Amino acid sequence: MLEKSSSIPAGRIPNVAAAIDLNSDVGESFGNWTLPDAQMLEVVSSANIACGFHAGDPITIRSTAATAAANGVAIGAHIGYRDLAGFGRRFIDYDLNELSADILYQLGALEAMAQAAGSKISYVKPHGALYNTIVTHQDQAKTVIDTIAEYNPKLPVLLLPGGYALEYARSQGLRGVAEAFADRAYNPDGSLVSRREEGAVLHDTDQVVENMLRLAQDGVLIARDGTRIETEAESICTHGDTQGSFQMAQAVREALTQAGIEIRSFAA
Amino acid sequence: MLEKSSSIPAGRIPNVAAAIDLNSDVGESFGNWTLPDAQMLEVVSSANIACGFHAGDPITIRSTAATAAANGVAIGAHIGYRDLAGFGRRFIDYDLNELSADILYQLGALEAMAQAAGSKISYVKPHGALYNTIVTHQDQAKTVIDTIAEYNPKLPVLLLPGGYALEYARSQGLRGVAEAFADRAYNPDGSLVSRREEGAVLHDTDQVVENMLRLAQDGVLIARDGTRIETEAESICTHGDTQGSFQMAQAVREALTQAGIEIRSFAA
Amino acid sequence: MLEKSSSIPAGRIPNVAAAIDLNSDVGESFGNWTLPDAQMLEVVSSANIACGFHAGDPITIRSTAATAAANGVAIGAHIGYRDLAGFGRRFIDYDLNELSADILYQLGALEAMAQAAGSKISYVKPHGALYNTIVTHQDQAKTVIDTIAEYNPKLPVLLLPGGYALEYARSQGLRGVAEAFADRAYNPDGSLVSRREEGAVLHDTDQVVENMLRLAQDGVLIARDGTRIETEAESICTHGDTQGSFQMAQAVREALTQAGIEIRSFAA
Amino acid sequence: MLEKSSSIPAGRIPNVAAAIDLNSDVGESFGNWTLPDAQMLEVVSSANIACGFHAGDPITIRSTAATAAANGVAIGAHIGYRDLAGFGRRFIDYDLNELSADILYQLGALEAMAQAAGSKISYVKPHGALYNTIVTHQDQAKTVIDTIAEYNPKLPVLLLPGGYALEYARSQGLRGVAEAFADRAYNPDGSLVSRREEGAVLHDTDQVVENMLRLAQDGVLIARDGTRIETEAESICTHGDTQGSFQMAQAVREALTQAGIEIRSFAA
Repeated sequence: MLEKSSSIPAGRIPNVAAAIDLNSDVGESFGNWTLPDAQMLEVVSSANIACGFHAGDPITIRSTAATAAANGVAIGAHIGYRDLAGFGRRFIDYDLNELSADILYQLGALEAMAQAAGSKISYVKPHGALYNTIVTHQDQAKTVIDTIAEYNPKLPVLLLPGGYALEYARSQGLRGVAEAFADRAYNPDGSLVSRREEGAVLHDTDQVVENMLRLAQDGVLIARDGTRIETEAESICTHGDTQGSFQMAQAVREALTQAGIEIRSFAA
Repeated sequence: MLEKSSSIPAGRIPNVAAAIDLNSDVGESFGNWTLPDAQMLEVVSSANIACGFHAGDPITIRSTAATAAANGVAIGAHIGYRDLAGFGRRFIDYDLNELSADILYQLGALEAMAQAAGSKISYVKPHGALYNTIVTHQDQAKTVIDTIAEYNPKLPVLLLPGGYALEYARSQGLRGVAEAFADRAYNPDGSLVSRREEGAVLHDTDQVVENMLRLAQDGVLIARDGTRIETEAESICTHGDTQGSFQMAQAVREALTQAGIEIRSFAA
Repeated sequence: MLEKSSSIPAGRIPNVAAAIDLNSDVGESFGNWTLPDAQMLEVVSSANIACGFHAGDPITIRSTAATAAANGVAIGAHIGYRDLAGFGRRFIDYDLNELSADILYQLGALEAMAQAAGSKISYVKPHGALYNTIVTHQDQAKTVIDTIAEYNPKLPVLLLPGGYALEYARSQGLRGVAEAFADRAYNPDGSLVSRREEGAVLHDTDQVVENMLRLAQDGVLIARDGTRIETEAESICTHGDTQGSFQMAQAVREALTQAGIEIRSFAA
Repeated sequence: MLEKSSSIPAGRIPNVAAAIDLNSDVGESFGNWTLPDAQMLEVVSSANIACGFHAGDPITIRSTAATAAANGVAIGAHIGYRDLAGFGRRFIDYDLNELSADILYQLGALEAMAQAAGSKISYVKPHGALYNTIVTHQDQAKTVIDTIAEYNPKLPVLLLPGGYALEYARSQGLRGVAEAFADRAYNPDGSLVSRREEGAVLHDTDQVVENMLRLAQDGVLIARDGTRIETEAESICTHGDTQGSFQMAQAVREALTQAGIEIRSFAA
């Protein structure tokens, strides 16, 4: 394991007033199929709430939005492809006008749920295959960003750093927010190690906690070969769909808090 | 056929400044399956737009809302059961909390489409089996009305006259608007002749036009046995899903207009 | 607790070669939503496999059928209403021809999966709201039974004892098989205690095991007031969707086996 | 227009006992959305019946299969991606095991409908985006063909000539049947003119009839630049979803019949 001290340049002033966001996918139950993701609303500051197209039935969405609002967690629209059977994880070669309409529909549906809870949508995060596709697929990326801009140009969009969607969002005047992944290994160029490679997913809570502390304090990720990666990530993506991932997310939150780092949504 | 004069009491002052609403179901296409209902947006003053649960994919809903807004037609949320295969025409014994959430989801989705067109939802009309169920099913009726009230208590609700839903809506301070059906025969008690009986659906355009003129001018429907029925209907439900019904709706509009009756949404 | 001896009439010859069936609902995962029901294929002799309308995506159905076949577990078609969001637990007022077609479609789909595993459908069990509805709803009951008869009149149908569907199935020459519920309390008339009443669901494994031993050995259930109920149940319905229910099902199997009672499908 | 005589080499013996297949997509209605495709069952010899994943609800599939059987039309399984909203016309990047299971499910479902009509599936034709994808996408092509082979290796597969799927099907011992498109223009290399180019779709019934007569008699298509293309097409794909296309299909059938060419399914 890397020495934590090695990642702090000598003479650097410690980030004494640091704050960072924790986000997680929630509201992903559907009918009788329940995922225990609501527990994450006590850990994160930003909730990516499924909007019904890849997951999330209306009653789940409604209760998730209500809990998020009650907990002071920012409500994000986790927009996805229309594909319940594939959980939004399969690329679909959409007609772009249909993609735009599907996104607008999801935003409106979630907005009603957020409003019923006395809150509102505070940001947007594309889900699954849509998230990954718009890193490089310029047409879909433009469609996603343009649709969000049409809906509400003040909504930040949570995206992978370095991708086309983030670049395009900023070119259109939207606030593009980059995120880092707590439980994933990084290549030296800042890209994620493919899940097909061994070691892509981190299971050592101590290591994850150390990584995320460094990120929050220094804005640095350490690639698996030790390379320091300066990152603009303002949010840490965590998971809560298994007991292990939930405990890891809790540990990250606790460590950050104990280090004096505020857990606060980028959209707050 | 009844003499028109017979329905106007001697000495009654003609309704010289009458106005009435025409409504129709629109936005009911889905994917490759297209219904030619957009043509009705040149006939009616109120558009019951499908919200995606019984019919209507997002791109259809969006374009329908845009055309309605462009034509000055009021946008109504045609909320329905989640049942594409049954087109919302089959009673479903919903859990009430799920029904409420399903309605709220649909309202929000359509609202986003209306807003994108520079407009908004102006009223709500339950669809199909939901419409018929809440005439008598008190639990579902309360759920529908309470959910609308929670979403926006200023929204009128378009309903069958004489039913529980209308009564409950008014008891809760909502504006319940009753409608008459242009192409349906009526029983002496004001109820619709069942579709299982012969003569339930009217195909004679002249007769329909005469009935609707009388309704707009005198507030009266004539039952199939000749009984005069005082009705509070403020809106006339027309259809445009077949060529014949479309032409009938056009004839009704033309006759009303020529009689000096303004076609204006109750929600305007 | 009742004395076990009290339920064996003096002089009765012990049932030394008894056999009974254990059945459970399986194949109920859908896409990313997984239920751990495959573990039940090591416990039961009959597998009620979801057919895709209330639960079960094709890959789940296929793998479940393959495991059932490999374990020598009889494959049953767990047919349901088309209602993923409601998990088939909401009554739907189907057109009867549509219900028939929906059932036939599900039977065919599962048959292909069974055949790919070198097996076949050995029985049918209606699911959820359909199961409960046809206890009294004669039109739907006839439609279900007639459709099964048309598909394959040799298929047994697993049903609630005492209901119309069972009676009608037998009147049509089908083999109707009655089942008992391991974890449910019974009224003196043999009906299930409603889930709305306290004590409807049994959580005491010892009690459940004792009840099921008595059932297998003597053909008797004991109502919650102590009344002996002669039952024709040839199958015991168990659950495996929670860890507790799975362990209870295992305990029942073990106790039956140790008592020399063979666990064998009624359809074997 | 090309001289018909020019396409018959001197000395060639006329094909006096020719036969060819006409196929069309049918069973594509869904719920309340009806397509008038059943009329094609009086024109074609092979019916590509939707299996419920891109189109076709069970009652439509059942009645379509029954009519096909009654008319002596071969029943083909028109398998597609799970995408009602996209009508199976959008590429989906399936997990291959899921694709295989989805295909098997569809085959079984249609088989039950065919059997209920006293018939059986006689061939398979992939639909829409799946059809086009497996021309080049080797993994999906192998999955489609291998799944059909596992289900029933005697089933012919109707495919685009020259594609990978056809080649792979034959390499696996399946009968791959090539088809020509009545209303499409061809490039000199035998590929279809892209729909994005002008003139891609033919609207001149006389021209279409002439082309299809030449195909049936001589096994030749004429590219739009006049090039003669030897083709192995054993089937002609026609359409019946519009009144114009239906009349064109009727004209093709009549002309072929009058020329003494039998309309007979390749699967008969």
